[in-house]
Amino acid sequence: MEKEISQAVIRRMPRYYRYLGELLDEGVERISSGELSERMSVTASQIRQDLNNFGGFGQQGYGYNVSYLYEEIGKILGLNETHNIIIIGAGNLGQAIANYMKFEKLGFHTIALFDVRDDLVGTKIRGIDVHHINELDDFVKDHNIDIAALTMPKSSADDIANRLVSLGIHAIWNFAHVDLSIDATDVVVENVHLSDSLMQLSYNIVKNH
Amino acid sequence: MEKEISQAVIRRMPRYYRYLGELLDEGVERISSGELSERMSVTASQIRQDLNNFGGFGQQGYGYNVSYLYEEIGKILGLNETHNIIIIGAGNLGQAIANYMKFEKLGFHTIALFDVRDDLVGTKIRGIDVHHINELDDFVKDHNIDIAALTMPKSSADDIANRLVSLGIHAIWNFAHVDLSIDATDVVVENVHLSDSLMQLSYNIVKNH
Repeated sequence: MEKEISQAVIRRMPRYYRYLGELLDEGVERISSGELSERMSVTASQIRQDLNNFGGFGQQGYGYNVSYLYEEIGKILGLNETHNIIIIGAGNLGQAIANYMKFEKLGFHTIALFDVRDDLVGTKIRGIDVHHINELDDFVKDHNIDIAALTMPKSSADDIANRLVSLGIHAIWNFAHVDLSIDATDVVVENVHLSDSLMQLSYNIVKNH
Repeated sequence: MEKEISQAVIRRMPRYYRYLGELLDEGVERISSGELSERMSVTASQIRQDLNNFGGFGQQGYGYNVSYLYEEIGKILGLNETHNIIIIGAGNLGQAIANYMKFEKLGFHTIALFDVRDDLVGTKIRGIDVHHINELDDFVKDHNIDIAALTMPKSSADDIANRLVSLGIHAIWNFAHVDLSIDATDVVVENVHLSDSLMQLSYNIVKNH
């Protein structure tokens, strides 16, 4: 893509995708930016601006073709390809991710979990093997892995992240409660800091009272 | 507070809190905005601006007192009070939240989980009871609940959210894959949309190649 698109726009694209999916489920074939704007509680001009980053998709006066727009946004988000995920940390959070069927439907397939705990190694989560972390290097070399999800404690997060990167993994979905220090520039990291989210909620409770 | 502080600033405050906590663990007593800026990879002027929203905390030339700043940001985030949480949905994600000790340390106490599944109702997660959802109304009336975490499927999320609000709960931590429609204005909602996060990662993988 020629133009650098801001992460703020990118953050909104999955939401468009979600709403368009709901419209499809309801059998809606065409929607104006005005109707979509009301439904999503954003301005119509915001919608037009966001979509214009990718070339538009609407015809003046005709609105958007829902299934076409759904598919195109899916392509923008890389959902026309499948992605293999490994999960480091097979505790509750790792298991929750492995169990979440929604990710499968979007083309994200968890193919292995890794842990150090004896009571977890050798078990299966929804049919997916939990391996010992010692098997990580061989497994990654033998499989095509697109994304590693980190759900283990923060103390080992940096070490594991750099090990994964040295094994050729370039995308990390980080749930560890730390900002990763990675010695490489071509790695994309998406953080889910649950404690930060909870603190933001807590701030808004205080402010609201 | 007189001035409305932007959510962008608020989103950054938990990160300050996290880094200051790490500094405290390392025994650092005082830090300049320059050093803090390098550590956090944000500009020193951003740090000064963010903290000035709350009155500053630094003395020119002396830097920040780490433990004082940590405590003050904690107060801003409402962490000087404890918060009781109930979790609706006792599957893996609900269990992950109930099991996460970090939240306890921040003063967020999970006191009950609710579900409809026979194999979950009556069990305990880290000593916390899983109740049937039918017991929700009585439980909420008998206890002081600050936050409800929603981890159940999106199909029932709106109904449960509005039921919780009518029972007097004003803060919702929403993990359901839907933007809630709540018929009240004095409710704060913090969303964790894991699929959206995964799609954003996927976009950045495509862009990076």
